[in-house]
Parts: sequence; C-alpha cells; structure tokens
Amino acid sequence: MKRIAIDMDEVMADFTTKHLTLYNRDFGEALTKEDLLGTRLWTLRPDLAKKLFEYVYDPTFFQDLDVMEGSQEVIKELSEHYEIFIATAAMEVPTSFAAKYKWLKEHFPFLSDMNFVFCGNKSIINADYLIDDNVKNFKDFSGQGILFTSEHNINETGYVRVNNWHEVRDYFLDKRNGEK
Amino acid sequence: MKRIAIDMDEVMADFTTKHLTLYNRDFGEALTKEDLLGTRLWTLRPDLAKKLFEYVYDPTFFQDLDVMEGSQEVIKELSEHYEIFIATAAMEVPTSFAAKYKWLKEHFPFLSDMNFVFCGNKSIINADYLIDDNVKNFKDFSGQGILFTSEHNINETGYVRVNNWHEVRDYFLDKRNGEK
Repeated sequence: MKRIAIDMDEVMADFTTKHLTLYNRDFGEALTKEDLLGTRLWTLRPDLAKKLFEYVYDPTFFQDLDVMEGSQEVIKELSEHYEIFIATAAMEVPTSFAAKYKWLKEHFPFLSDMNFVFCGNKSIINADYLIDDNVKNFKDFSGQGILFTSEHNINETGYVRVNNWHEVRDYFLDKRNGEK
Repeated sequence: MKRIAIDMDEVMADFTTKHLTLYNRDFGEALTKEDLLGTRLWTLRPDLAKKLFEYVYDPTFFQDLDVMEGSQEVIKELSEHYEIFIATAAMEVPTSFAAKYKWLKEHFPFLSDMNFVFCGNKSIINADYLIDDNVKNFKDFSGQGILFTSEHNINETGYVRVNNWHEVRDYFLDKRNGEK
C-alpha cells in the first residue's frame, strides 16, 4: 500500500481565514484572501510581523481552525486505498502541539494518532507522496511532492499542483488505476 | 551526509529510574532496574498498570528525566559527521509534547528543533540509522536499526546492539572510517 503524507495548515486546516480575521479586527482593515495572492500577510505588513506571529504562538490559535472544504471526505476515501500520515511543521510553533493534536482527533477521528507526525524539516518523512502548500518542503523529500494551491503559492511553477480536495481525489484515483 | 535518527526514552532520557522511583515511593517497594531485566514494570505488576500509566500521563513527567550517561557528548560529536534527528514516539502520550520539547532544548541545545520529530509509527522516519530500545520500531524502518540496550530488551537477539553511548560512538566512528 502506497503512503501519502499530508500537511495540515492551508491543506487540511484553514489557517489564513482565522489569521486574517484577527488581523482585520485588531487593525481595522478588511483584507481578504485575494490580497494575499502571491504573498503572505507578514510580507505585506512587515512592520507588524511580530504581532502577526504572536497570534500564532497563542496555544489556542490552532484549536478552532476551519476544516478545508472536502478534506474530510477525500482523506477518508483515500485512507481505504493508501496509508495516510499527517505531517505538520509543528516545531515552528511549539506552543501548537496540543491544539493541533486535539484538532486532528476531533475532525479526522478515522485516522490513527500513530500516523501523526509533528516535525520541522520534512525531509525526515518517508512517504511516496507529500501534499503540501510550501514548496520548500519538497526540496529534499524523497517521494513525489504535490503542491496544494494556497494564496501564497499561486506563482510557483514546476510542481504537480492540485487546487482543492476534489483534484486530490482525482489525482490519486487516477494514480491508483494506473498502478493496478 | 548520512542521517541518524535517535529515540528519546531509555536512549537519551532515563525514563525507568523516575518511573521506578515513583512506583517504589507510592507502593512501599524497593524494585531496581535489575528487577526489570527482560520485562517491564507494567508486566511485572499488571494489576497496577493503570496507575503506572497515570505517572506517565502527568504532563510534567518527562520534564526532569535524567540524561543518559554519555549521550550529550557523543551526540554532539556525531552531529559533526552525521545529520542528527530525534524521533520520539510522543503520540503514545500526547500530554508529553511540551515537556519533551523543553527537555530537548535544555539538554541538547546544539540540536536544531527543526530536527525533532514527535511521531507514533516510526516507519515514517527517513534516515539511514535508527537508534532505539524498542525492536518494534525496526520492523518497517527502511534503514539500519541499532538496538540500544535497556532492561526490557536484553533477551532480544538478531539486532545490531549497542550497550551504551560509548559503544554508539565506536560503532559510528568505525562506520565512518569504513565509508571514507
């Protein structure tokens, strides 16, 4: 059985909506995801980078992120044909461990926590595929990287790209048919 | 540069001494590590297994474990010749995340937290070597497993075995010379 590793933020969990909401509330702005096309909030507002990171370092930040549309159904279906691991760069925000764990148990109860991986450098991941929104994570990954579209990565080229979970489903069902 | 993944409990951190101390204190016994040769405390005292697990689920349990003799010096030296990752089965005790992270930062400040991996099933680890006291972790590991002697594993055979950190040093310096 082939193995798929899946990133959390911006792939399973909608990080950006909550981050933008907190920012807009505190700074009286009305930025939307469209304003983040090809960039990131801390790049757009560099003077506020410290404050923007503070939101994320709050131990509760990650506990109530929205689930990305389609991810639950598609990951459940994929888990019948592939070994699924969740690989999240939690070491960048060590205060996030408990909230990320609870979020996964709540929204993806069909996954075993033995297949959760909280890491930093994702080159440690031994999997056939990695679905991730950060191209840096593909650099030393030994398998096939699959770029999940997020506002910040829309200008990246040269990667297999999926725009949403429906496209993930199509990609892997086609793959599976090809591998039969 | 070849990569070594290293387990924490019973390899870097002396889990058993603290666990035995708490048990002896609460149950008026004087068990030593010798009593655990070829077994584990919860196997020896099955009626108390629940209580024995409770010690470990205390979020502070892992924060003040003793450092295994020689591990700091040898891992520091190895890190000059190998890429070092720490791979700990933290998902078995999700309450341990924060304490394990702090412990590593305190006792191994020369390691990058980007190379810490909190996981369950260690077959996800992509490394050339895995130093671990649990033989189950070698089952699907793609590299060379190295069994670090602990009371519970003394009867295991068929593995490359190191009895302490001095032997780890010898093994990898010999390896390195052989690989030159």
